[in-house]
Amino acid sequence: MSTETIRSRDNALVKQLRRLGQDGAAGRELGLVWLEGEHLCRALLARGHLPALLLRAESAPHWDHAWALPPSVRRVALADSLLASVSSLGSSAPVGFLWPLPAAVAPEPGRPTVLLDRLQDPGNVGSILRSAAAFGFEQVLALKGTAALWAPKVLRAGMGAHFALRLVEAATLADLPALQLPLLATSSHQGQWLHQAALPWPCAWLLGHEGQGLSPELLAAASQHLRIAQPGGEESLNVAAAAAICLHASAVQRGA
Amino acid sequence: MSTETIRSRDNALVKQLRRLGQDGAAGRELGLVWLEGEHLCRALLARGHLPALLLRAESAPHWDHAWALPPSVRRVALADSLLASVSSLGSSAPVGFLWPLPAAVAPEPGRPTVLLDRLQDPGNVGSILRSAAAFGFEQVLALKGTAALWAPKVLRAGMGAHFALRLVEAATLADLPALQLPLLATSSHQGQWLHQAALPWPCAWLLGHEGQGLSPELLAAASQHLRIAQPGGEESLNVAAAAAICLHASAVQRGA
Repeated sequence: MSTETIRSRDNALVKQLRRLGQDGAAGRELGLVWLEGEHLCRALLARGHLPALLLRAESAPHWDHAWALPPSVRRVALADSLLASVSSLGSSAPVGFLWPLPAAVAPEPGRPTVLLDRLQDPGNVGSILRSAAAFGFEQVLALKGTAALWAPKVLRAGMGAHFALRLVEAATLADLPALQLPLLATSSHQGQWLHQAALPWPCAWLLGHEGQGLSPELLAAASQHLRIAQPGGEESLNVAAAAAICLHASAVQRGA
Repeated sequence: MSTETIRSRDNALVKQLRRLGQDGAAGRELGLVWLEGEHLCRALLARGHLPALLLRAESAPHWDHAWALPPSVRRVALADSLLASVSSLGSSAPVGFLWPLPAAVAPEPGRPTVLLDRLQDPGNVGSILRSAAAFGFEQVLALKGTAALWAPKVLRAGMGAHFALRLVEAATLADLPALQLPLLATSSHQGQWLHQAALPWPCAWLLGHEGQGLSPELLAAASQHLRIAQPGGEESLNVAAAAAICLHASAVQRGA
């Protein structure tokens, strides 16, 4: 096992990292995910996956021997300032992995699902993936227009939930019937109160754009509309907050 | 009613806006909040408040006459590129208000409360303010170390919830007894399941730092520990997602 040290901004790997950090679509194109920081690396290993490459700051050699990675995993040390300059997170995590991006998959029928309709905010998307994994949902479908699920900011907010879920990007409305699931939507003005409703399991929760909500087509496709009681007044909820409440409600009823 | 037009980067007001956008503490120092965008402006007016100043892009004169503001409200047009350059949100909302920052207030006993213990992420803090307002909580205490509640990114994520809440910044542990409320904390390993617990009202929910959770002092001060069922596995929840679930549970029990 040996470690290469890179100090040049023009190195091919450095250029690749820069692209991965800046461009949400680069991951799909290069077939790689860059997992920055100890937490994400650990979460990947906990799911039984191995990275293609371990990347660490030159000043932090102990990471070469962390986690008992097999010698076959390539180790690269990057000059500290260089690593900081290509970080996508504006911080300089001293360690990270490059991991082959999972191949695109099709939706699988019958699996408890969360569907994202054009969600824009990486923090919201990551938070929802985390809630989905915590509450026993297995599959997330992202309709076209949703933030790239493997983008660095979504990965950071997801805190490892990505590795626990079947992630389907570029899904379309035509994928919905094949799910063979009841489709649940929140609504501000129609349907039963969520806290009084009987919720089916498995199901698919439909979550819509931060400003516009669900598209009319999805609202019409929903088999059940549910309202979250908001006694505080006319205020509305952040979509990831609403999602947490809904997915938790499903998980609790399933357990009862 | 007349509108001043500003095109110079060195104008005193422009300098002030730049500081407000860049520095979370500047608002408190200058005694001003900058509300960017139509939604926040509308939310302020809906609560019966008036701005000190209306700020709009030079290319959008119709904003001078929006909302039937009294002539006493100063109108300023900023050259579009100048407005975009001082925007704190990386976007260029064509309209905004400057509003006198509410004077610092002390916690009020007995009011349904949410306490933030060193929360860092502006999106999380804003989302929690929104949930608090939606679920009938009236007061938010931010312990030292929490993101500035009136910072631009928190305001944006709060979507107007700021104006519905009593916001207490720089709170300390010494403020807790004076609240005269049961203090509720979430825990991953002790206490009752949230969905089976009887929750007191009014109460104060304690929410902790994104990575470290609540401080040991706050955990010890809590009168009740509640667990959120997470059948999906070892995953954890984003703090704003957990907050939404807890505050909703309180609201639902209160209504029953």
